[in-house]
Amino acid sequence: MDLTEGNDMISLMERLFPICRSISGNGVRESFEIIKEHIPVQLYEVQTGTKVFDWEVPKEWNIKDAYIMDEKGRKIVDFKKHNLHVVGYSTPIDKILSLDELQKHLYSIEEQPNAIPYITSYYKERWGFCISHHEREKLKEGNYHVFIDSELKNGNLTYGEFIIPGESDKEVFLSTYLCHPSMANNELSGPVLAVYLAKWLMKENRKYTYRIIFIPETIGSITYLSRNLEEMKKNVIAGFNITCVGDERAYSYLPSRLGNTLADRVALKVLENTHPDFVRYSFLERGSDERQYCSPGIDLPVASVMRTKYGQYPEYHTSLDNLDIVTAKGLQGSYDVYKSCIELIECNAYYQVKCLGEPQLGKRGLYPTLSTKESGRLVRDMMNFIAYSDGNHDLIEISNIIGVPVAKLYPIIQLLVDNDLLFKRNEIL
Amino acid sequence: MDLTEGNDMISLMERLFPICRSISGNGVRESFEIIKEHIPVQLYEVQTGTKVFDWEVPKEWNIKDAYIMDEKGRKIVDFKKHNLHVVGYSTPIDKILSLDELQKHLYSIEEQPNAIPYITSYYKERWGFCISHHEREKLKEGNYHVFIDSELKNGNLTYGEFIIPGESDKEVFLSTYLCHPSMANNELSGPVLAVYLAKWLMKENRKYTYRIIFIPETIGSITYLSRNLEEMKKNVIAGFNITCVGDERAYSYLPSRLGNTLADRVALKVLENTHPDFVRYSFLERGSDERQYCSPGIDLPVASVMRTKYGQYPEYHTSLDNLDIVTAKGLQGSYDVYKSCIELIECNAYYQVKCLGEPQLGKRGLYPTLSTKESGRLVRDMMNFIAYSDGNHDLIEISNIIGVPVAKLYPIIQLLVDNDLLFKRNEIL
Amino acid sequence: MDLTEGNDMISLMERLFPICRSISGNGVRESFEIIKEHIPVQLYEVQTGTKVFDWEVPKEWNIKDAYIMDEKGRKIVDFKKHNLHVVGYSTPIDKILSLDELQKHLYSIEEQPNAIPYITSYYKERWGFCISHHEREKLKEGNYHVFIDSELKNGNLTYGEFIIPGESDKEVFLSTYLCHPSMANNELSGPVLAVYLAKWLMKENRKYTYRIIFIPETIGSITYLSRNLEEMKKNVIAGFNITCVGDERAYSYLPSRLGNTLADRVALKVLENTHPDFVRYSFLERGSDERQYCSPGIDLPVASVMRTKYGQYPEYHTSLDNLDIVTAKGLQGSYDVYKSCIELIECNAYYQVKCLGEPQLGKRGLYPTLSTKESGRLVRDMMNFIAYSDGNHDLIEISNIIGVPVAKLYPIIQLLVDNDLLFKRNEIL
Repeated sequence: MDLTEGNDMISLMERLFPICRSISGNGVRESFEIIKEHIPVQLYEVQTGTKVFDWEVPKEWNIKDAYIMDEKGRKIVDFKKHNLHVVGYSTPIDKILSLDELQKHLYSIEEQPNAIPYITSYYKERWGFCISHHEREKLKEGNYHVFIDSELKNGNLTYGEFIIPGESDKEVFLSTYLCHPSMANNELSGPVLAVYLAKWLMKENRKYTYRIIFIPETIGSITYLSRNLEEMKKNVIAGFNITCVGDERAYSYLPSRLGNTLADRVALKVLENTHPDFVRYSFLERGSDERQYCSPGIDLPVASVMRTKYGQYPEYHTSLDNLDIVTAKGLQGSYDVYKSCIELIECNAYYQVKCLGEPQLGKRGLYPTLSTKESGRLVRDMMNFIAYSDGNHDLIEISNIIGVPVAKLYPIIQLLVDNDLLFKRNEIL
Repeated sequence: MDLTEGNDMISLMERLFPICRSISGNGVRESFEIIKEHIPVQLYEVQTGTKVFDWEVPKEWNIKDAYIMDEKGRKIVDFKKHNLHVVGYSTPIDKILSLDELQKHLYSIEEQPNAIPYITSYYKERWGFCISHHEREKLKEGNYHVFIDSELKNGNLTYGEFIIPGESDKEVFLSTYLCHPSMANNELSGPVLAVYLAKWLMKENRKYTYRIIFIPETIGSITYLSRNLEEMKKNVIAGFNITCVGDERAYSYLPSRLGNTLADRVALKVLENTHPDFVRYSFLERGSDERQYCSPGIDLPVASVMRTKYGQYPEYHTSLDNLDIVTAKGLQGSYDVYKSCIELIECNAYYQVKCLGEPQLGKRGLYPTLSTKESGRLVRDMMNFIAYSDGNHDLIEISNIIGVPVAKLYPIIQLLVDNDLLFKRNEIL
Repeated sequence: MDLTEGNDMISLMERLFPICRSISGNGVRESFEIIKEHIPVQLYEVQTGTKVFDWEVPKEWNIKDAYIMDEKGRKIVDFKKHNLHVVGYSTPIDKILSLDELQKHLYSIEEQPNAIPYITSYYKERWGFCISHHEREKLKEGNYHVFIDSELKNGNLTYGEFIIPGESDKEVFLSTYLCHPSMANNELSGPVLAVYLAKWLMKENRKYTYRIIFIPETIGSITYLSRNLEEMKKNVIAGFNITCVGDERAYSYLPSRLGNTLADRVALKVLENTHPDFVRYSFLERGSDERQYCSPGIDLPVASVMRTKYGQYPEYHTSLDNLDIVTAKGLQGSYDVYKSCIELIECNAYYQVKCLGEPQLGKRGLYPTLSTKESGRLVRDMMNFIAYSDGNHDLIEISNIIGVPVAKLYPIIQLLVDNDLLFKRNEIL
């Protein structure tokens, strides 16, 4: 396995990892500065209070420092050591509290005593600290100085959009979210993969236009949809929500709401051909931006291809979701699968054979000169491909019917097109 | 289990049980007099000889007395003790016969030696007696006086109809038959359940109109259809043939001919949610008025929900089908299931969420304030219900997709409608 | 089992067996002379070089004699003893060769040392001999005289067509191939069965027109289609490729390309009713003229019903495929199955009952007078047939739904038509 992009993605992730992101604020902007070194992503700022469908854009949150100091002046919890220590969107505080009072503002996980949990409170103003249960149990009676230097103000929600024009206005849509502090599989694996897919897509001309967005989860997808829905409904033929693509444990598929879009068919075809032991989820197990993309009236053809799904691995939403569990190999695998999906979308079409009856392959030299088991298979695959190239079955369907992976059909298609035996009935889906 | 209606239905059945009914005659009229104490059923009389589709209304039959007397003057078989003793539609007779001659007119069941069988001969004139095989074996050589004081004459076929108007002209159709002498599960459980469903339906305004009929089986449904088909084909959206609803042994479902009507979907949904171990029959196992309601060209959406199906329990069509096997609990169970079916028909619709993207439940206070496992389930069910409320899936389909019983969806629908988040795309199906 | 036709077919096969046929030439014409003694088949000659879709008609090949003679003047391989000894379409040769040189032109099968293989080279000019591996191993060093008195010239491709007009222009199409030298199951079982089906079809008036053709495989079907496609696409409602119908080992079904044509439905219905243990192949396992008949743009409704399929029995394409493995019983079985298929096509229709509600069978005497288990089944089958005779299900669907073989429905249909209870909604499909 060639880990070229995998290693590059790890490097990018290492730079992004320490930044304290949230659904708004300077951490997001700082992250985009790094991403812009790779791709010319266009940034948008949407004002606090803007109506977006049933929601409105919340206040912008920024934080400079936070700690809990004991009576001896020791910072026993320090935001500067780990940005998960502060509840996301915490209001500012500077106060001396008893342990009892402090406990009401602490969050820890008894079952994972060494993990700092990830907690946010976007829509109810409060403050709090997240610590490992192990540390929490060490706390003694006494007074504690809690200090959070944060600001919650009218400002902006920031998102990034990168559009790569293709021959057609029809679009492939890639969405990933950028709103979590220091966590690796959920979330940084998503944006770094999206960056490297974009870099690959930029390298040559494509049939389809690619719309790649980096948004805060939920409020970001709602905001983005509220501004781009009409165009997207007209153009998007397939889309993927890219998240949790960095570990090595599993491949997963979560369908679109109705489960039968091109995105679903492509994801299933690629995973069945390349990783047949993938985990198949139901849309009822959804949990990310497909909740918006697939909601009634939006109905974009968006599915998710992941490694281990959010909520399904023990490190999820804790400080343990770090660079130990996301690897170059894990990211490279996802990168390869997404490339295969995109190649299939680009190549998928309703092919039609040009002659009536079977073509005479012999006179065109299309029979292999060396007769081997492999060459026999090739001829059989070619004849079966031709048999179903009736203009009514697309490539995915033909692959399913004749039981041949699409990757083995690409050279056959090329050969037949080169010999003027095949054409695409519909160039653009 | 509240047995209020079950006990009331048993009381009504006890009054109806002794009456000698047949497909015509005064026993039917006498039964209607009792039913009229409960609901204002409208009676119709159809003259003998009236053409009804491929059939014609037969002669009216009435009987006053019948017995077999032995040489010692003892009534060894007495109609007044059990009205099953006489073959239905027996012609009059008053004659002395040898045992050999008598045997040709006796009916018994060797395998059920204590049961009096139920035998009729509507379309061929004959006479006969039904006795237990046990009694039959006791008969000695000698002469017997057979006496049947019956009358077969031009008269009328009687049926009852009760229509409860609703907001819509669209109808729910409930059919039950009233033509058997003293038998409890098949048949009296049907009419008494229909009476109590009618009483419940009368209590409040309904979306749909309810057409409830009490007819003699086969010839009655043919007669009724021949007079009401056009209106019924226009209006009936779902119907049920109510029979064998009184024992405690099973729940059963017999589909309509094509198996995919609203009645079928409702019956399956309710039974799957409430009695998942129900027995599922094929339309090939039909045997009651669905034979007419579902015949080609009639094609009404009629299914059957039963307890143990006719023909499937040992007491069927014998004197053993009595008040020992029909219970308040058995009837109450059927009553509850039919109420659930009707509630589902009333509530079923193509619901559509009013906003794009997921609604913000928090600002409406729709998130439970107390977070428990149950409240988590409620939010998940609500979000899943919303996800499929796209105006293209009706309530039954949504329940199937998201795996939540309809009874748990009713309060969710109410909550969403009250919060102006949901509407019915089509008010009337 | 009555073997009348089976025995007659064996007799015909014995006459055809010794003739050396190929895809063109006098062996084919000689075979047609014999066939013409049975049916008035019309012969067509198509010139070498004629363009037929993506192909062109090859040169005509004829052969008079061929042998390999050893140094002692013994004919160690002699075409006159078995015509499989010469590679089909061998160019003429008359030469002395060393054993080494000779070996390059010999074909044998190591795994079947007593079998002479069947080899052809229609589209590349060469010469060769086929011998048993056993004989080949006996060859000693030395010189050999190889002699082939063949001729490859501009001539004609010969095929036969026999059309039996019916009431309708709509056609049933039967295709079989006549291009192999002395082999019995593949191929002579096909033409002899086609001859005897034609003789049976000629005996009475039919609803459909029958188009029966005898062609060389592949190039023949391509040639025939190139001249008759328009008419066939308009008229053919079902067709069968008749091949490998002579052994006793199996019944097989190979579907049309899309698998849902009338031919497929009929073949499946008949085999399921009469030989439920038949072998079901995929279209991916095709190998005969269905490759052309079902190709994109041709799309004729052609399936194959066979005994053991080509390629699936050890004697296939060798001298062992002889009159030992094809039997009167084997051929008779196929004959009966094909007759059943044709009878079903003739009888299949959308039947519709004439009355509303169930008909009154009693007044028409349609209830059996003797009540037996068999008569009970008959009434139940009749009522079930009527229940689905709604003009929307054809006979095959009704048979599938009610679980009654079509052969048991024919007399029921007749009875109902005679009693004016049933009509065909569409006389001609």
